[in-house]
Amino acid sequence: MTTACVAGGAGYIGGELIRLLLGHPRVEFAGASSATLAGRRIDGAHPNLRGLTDASFTEPGRLPRCDVLFTAAPHTRAMAAVREHLDTGAVVIDLSGDFRLRDPGEYERYYGVPHTEPELLDGFVSGLPELHRAEIATADRISVPGCMATAAILALHPLVRSGLAVGEPRVDARTGSSGSGASAAHNTHAERSGALRVYAPLGHRHEAEIRQALGRPVRMTVTGIGAVRGVQVLCWTRLAPGAGPREVRAAYRTRYAAEPFVRVVAARRGPHRLPDPKILAGANFCDVGFAADEAGGEVLAVAALDNLVKGGAGNAVQCMNLRLGLPERSGLEFSGLHPV
Amino acid sequence: MTTACVAGGAGYIGGELIRLLLGHPRVEFAGASSATLAGRRIDGAHPNLRGLTDASFTEPGRLPRCDVLFTAAPHTRAMAAVREHLDTGAVVIDLSGDFRLRDPGEYERYYGVPHTEPELLDGFVSGLPELHRAEIATADRISVPGCMATAAILALHPLVRSGLAVGEPRVDARTGSSGSGASAAHNTHAERSGALRVYAPLGHRHEAEIRQALGRPVRMTVTGIGAVRGVQVLCWTRLAPGAGPREVRAAYRTRYAAEPFVRVVAARRGPHRLPDPKILAGANFCDVGFAADEAGGEVLAVAALDNLVKGGAGNAVQCMNLRLGLPERSGLEFSGLHPV
Amino acid sequence: MTTACVAGGAGYIGGELIRLLLGHPRVEFAGASSATLAGRRIDGAHPNLRGLTDASFTEPGRLPRCDVLFTAAPHTRAMAAVREHLDTGAVVIDLSGDFRLRDPGEYERYYGVPHTEPELLDGFVSGLPELHRAEIATADRISVPGCMATAAILALHPLVRSGLAVGEPRVDARTGSSGSGASAAHNTHAERSGALRVYAPLGHRHEAEIRQALGRPVRMTVTGIGAVRGVQVLCWTRLAPGAGPREVRAAYRTRYAAEPFVRVVAARRGPHRLPDPKILAGANFCDVGFAADEAGGEVLAVAALDNLVKGGAGNAVQCMNLRLGLPERSGLEFSGLHPV
Amino acid sequence: MTTACVAGGAGYIGGELIRLLLGHPRVEFAGASSATLAGRRIDGAHPNLRGLTDASFTEPGRLPRCDVLFTAAPHTRAMAAVREHLDTGAVVIDLSGDFRLRDPGEYERYYGVPHTEPELLDGFVSGLPELHRAEIATADRISVPGCMATAAILALHPLVRSGLAVGEPRVDARTGSSGSGASAAHNTHAERSGALRVYAPLGHRHEAEIRQALGRPVRMTVTGIGAVRGVQVLCWTRLAPGAGPREVRAAYRTRYAAEPFVRVVAARRGPHRLPDPKILAGANFCDVGFAADEAGGEVLAVAALDNLVKGGAGNAVQCMNLRLGLPERSGLEFSGLHPV
Repeated sequence: MTTACVAGGAGYIGGELIRLLLGHPRVEFAGASSATLAGRRIDGAHPNLRGLTDASFTEPGRLPRCDVLFTAAPHTRAMAAVREHLDTGAVVIDLSGDFRLRDPGEYERYYGVPHTEPELLDGFVSGLPELHRAEIATADRISVPGCMATAAILALHPLVRSGLAVGEPRVDARTGSSGSGASAAHNTHAERSGALRVYAPLGHRHEAEIRQALGRPVRMTVTGIGAVRGVQVLCWTRLAPGAGPREVRAAYRTRYAAEPFVRVVAARRGPHRLPDPKILAGANFCDVGFAADEAGGEVLAVAALDNLVKGGAGNAVQCMNLRLGLPERSGLEFSGLHPV
Repeated sequence: MTTACVAGGAGYIGGELIRLLLGHPRVEFAGASSATLAGRRIDGAHPNLRGLTDASFTEPGRLPRCDVLFTAAPHTRAMAAVREHLDTGAVVIDLSGDFRLRDPGEYERYYGVPHTEPELLDGFVSGLPELHRAEIATADRISVPGCMATAAILALHPLVRSGLAVGEPRVDARTGSSGSGASAAHNTHAERSGALRVYAPLGHRHEAEIRQALGRPVRMTVTGIGAVRGVQVLCWTRLAPGAGPREVRAAYRTRYAAEPFVRVVAARRGPHRLPDPKILAGANFCDVGFAADEAGGEVLAVAALDNLVKGGAGNAVQCMNLRLGLPERSGLEFSGLHPV
Repeated sequence: MTTACVAGGAGYIGGELIRLLLGHPRVEFAGASSATLAGRRIDGAHPNLRGLTDASFTEPGRLPRCDVLFTAAPHTRAMAAVREHLDTGAVVIDLSGDFRLRDPGEYERYYGVPHTEPELLDGFVSGLPELHRAEIATADRISVPGCMATAAILALHPLVRSGLAVGEPRVDARTGSSGSGASAAHNTHAERSGALRVYAPLGHRHEAEIRQALGRPVRMTVTGIGAVRGVQVLCWTRLAPGAGPREVRAAYRTRYAAEPFVRVVAARRGPHRLPDPKILAGANFCDVGFAADEAGGEVLAVAALDNLVKGGAGNAVQCMNLRLGLPERSGLEFSGLHPV
Repeated sequence: MTTACVAGGAGYIGGELIRLLLGHPRVEFAGASSATLAGRRIDGAHPNLRGLTDASFTEPGRLPRCDVLFTAAPHTRAMAAVREHLDTGAVVIDLSGDFRLRDPGEYERYYGVPHTEPELLDGFVSGLPELHRAEIATADRISVPGCMATAAILALHPLVRSGLAVGEPRVDARTGSSGSGASAAHNTHAERSGALRVYAPLGHRHEAEIRQALGRPVRMTVTGIGAVRGVQVLCWTRLAPGAGPREVRAAYRTRYAAEPFVRVVAARRGPHRLPDPKILAGANFCDVGFAADEAGGEVLAVAALDNLVKGGAGNAVQCMNLRLGLPERSGLEFSGLHPV
């Protein structure tokens, strides 16, 4: 059976990768490493996995040989971590920000440090199946996009590709606290509970990813919200002259008709008329919707996802499935809950 | 393939049943009825099911013939609803409170109305696999226990069965808002958010179920908490003379060693040392733990579960699996999330 | 002593009015009416007032004579309710939407029904002290603006008045569940907890109020969030050529230097760098902040308030203080809590 | 005017003390020290105080002379901190656990370190006005009790004093995350949000305080809940033979009739029938209620409070008012909010 390992399994993304691999019908979870928790049981860090695995974290660099290696190191530390694993023969799927931007200058601008492995950048394929399915199927190095970037790209792509969107979209992103990682400052419960923290008022590093994917600049604002999981983006853009609700609807329906993990959610009324991350916790869906204003000549595109699943570990497993020639939905069937 | 239907599919328990049946690898979901939403799409009421089914609710009584029928009518209305379905040939699994108590007098005392179908009571087997696995495997009528009762019974059973518990246990139950159903009064978000509402200070109808299952009375207090899903029970009981932590631990380990959906969670320290429903949303586990006080001669038993899954729909599917001779875990593999 | 009554005291805004009047050092609370709860104790509906008043609600129309009458009927029903109270000699301060828009056609467009008392519209002064302090001081009929409108107007006014803002601002409003009233549908805890419900994707009736106050159109989107109290608005607008952070900062500092209830919150970093409604529950502050992007030629203005206080009852009391010649802060000193 | 300072003003209790002193009509806030934030603005740590003070934290030991000194150092570090301030002539009101237990052996047992200032213990009066009003009025050293102890003592005292309670009460305490302080481990939002963490299953240090105050042992369990503020205790105790609801009600009504900050909340029905901390955030009330079971011979006593106010800073200000001969309610009039 195909085997997969996780380098950097103690964080939240790492925990989700282990969860998905343990439940995967066609791939075997073969081990996870952690610099801080080596030797400790995996289910001590991820208590939802009790009863599913008795394994412990290995030291970094002591993982068994495997077919697919997920690397989940923090941004700026992933560069070196990935370098170390390149000669193992495994397909490498990286979940950090370090191999997302093709231009090392852009990387330095947004991440604040120079890229130490710029010659590796060209070898990575962007791990967004909805845009790069064919390349992913043959890639040996895949870089999974950021959670908010994934949502914004999927929200806007039908409009941009079809020429319906003109100008520079505005992206208003809301993100739960788990995106800050397991140990971030200012994220105690007392401080973060119920917060609406506009921490990136004008500009966020995911802007660069979105621009790279869509071929057009966006303006992004990010608010940290009181949820643990979940990203929602609101994207406003002007419509091309003559375009209206009918064209917008057609663009979305056509674009995503065959996508297993994008659902078009655009009802006329009701509490669930547009995408809400509340019902997506644990699911690999990115729900995408829109409201078009014919008179006003603009459209609001909305997307929602679980930042740790379709915005991270789930999307990475989807890439793995494509690369291995498995059914794309394998191990990703959980639908999300309601109410929750 | 085996088929299953849900009578009363618009409520929260009904929605969970449909979700679990749609994802079940060995049973086919064949339809759901609703008096209030007949003719409307199922995924309008349960938006997490978008993309998984295009079906609509049927009128009550217009469900197709099927092998297993889940009835999810409200307490006191389920009696008549079940009666109507008895001649369909299907195995009936009822999720209301109406067929849980064997004594119709007890029923009237706790539910406030006389039982209209007392002659049916003897035909029902209690749908708690951990206590009644063999009977469930051959039963045609199964009554799934209440969510708080399930948690309390599983928390206390090892102590009672082994003779370690003496006297009358005290049960302190905490329950999320989804247990009140989709339309209950006093449960607007503004009123219930963050609440600690002691709504049953001394005595709750689940007391009767627990007494019936354990063969001993308990004293129960219930607090409505600010979570949507989740039940946690704290049960204190006196220990038999001479018994201490070692005997308690052995009783739990032995009792639940072979149970697929009961995990013993009793660590010495750490944030996850005892069961917490937070990580169980969507999962069919009942986590059970304990802390024994040798000097004090008492033990605290703690259990946690998702009230809509192991406390309702998931437990019902587990019963169905047993009755059909399927692997007990079929369709119930979701592990729960962390963090969430 | 000056006396004040509340017509429509059973709702959330009514409850806040009673709370503020009971704590007011210079005005005496003289009674509250309710159509639904007449004869019942006030502290039954508003349990935070236990021990502060033993009074019960009167029938509508059976309030004692008083100097100031607050009317807190729902939109579209307030028209008639206000008409009935006009001959009592009291200063009328209305908290509904019915007397906010000067143009009855505009009213019908946004509220869906014709205005039945159009001849009264001219008699009302807009109850926003920061824009209309002098008129309020002599007005006998005051219409308190909507919660989101108040936030957006205070966020944008310094930029518009100083000529720094050009074009049509975009307003992204987030609002807690208490704004939906005590009995709204789709607002059970289970449905609303943790939600991000984009219920007004393009256009909301508060647009009209903002346009009327600022003299320029805005484009508004509204998301219902999982908080009970709190409104936050994000407003993006283009800057006039040559304008940058320095001018923006000066505009806010100058504009609000003397305002007792507007705080300029615009730090360079930290978790509290921009306004967050989390710390404003119960307080009458509207926190206003901004982030200007010199290169990009735009500014993000952010405002936050408690929708039931500065967005409703507190603002109404501030108007009363002005009208009665009392210190503007009387009865409104509560600072808000941290953490919470 | 009387002046007051806060030694250790950067924590949550310190922030509440500063908030209450800034709003106090008869006492002047004269300064706050902090070892970690000396030189930084107070409103940087406590953003709710923006606009209310421009002061910065001083170094520890550099506070101005004042009439009342509140010491809010962490447990085990407060011993030395208090010693340093004893010669300043100020009335010292300590909010740590270090001077609550009269017996230094008991202290070492519950806090894990020897008491370094045992000769000071006798000089402290317990700062619970409902039990020690007369002594507080003349005391120069006051030790404010723990938040959960305060709730449990006030819940049980009427029953114990009147002889209605027999045996050893069981105390089930639930506590919000702010009680863990501004920097505690395992309290990130992602971990703590929505948690029900039974972190002290059998025994907690507040047991010793309760026993000391009531003169009888209790058995205590503590659960950390998903709220930020708030403590609720459920206390079950057996009733003396012949006692029933009538005697219990009389005991509470009589005991608390004259108390300004204890409200008896014991309705027969409704969502607010028993005390809930949800509506007490920011208020100095301890709500106390009960439900008696005549047949069962037992009573459930329930108390709720804001752990940072009546469970800490507010109670300390109430003690100060008594010591200074001020009206007991001075500066403590905030009623709490509903909904919230």
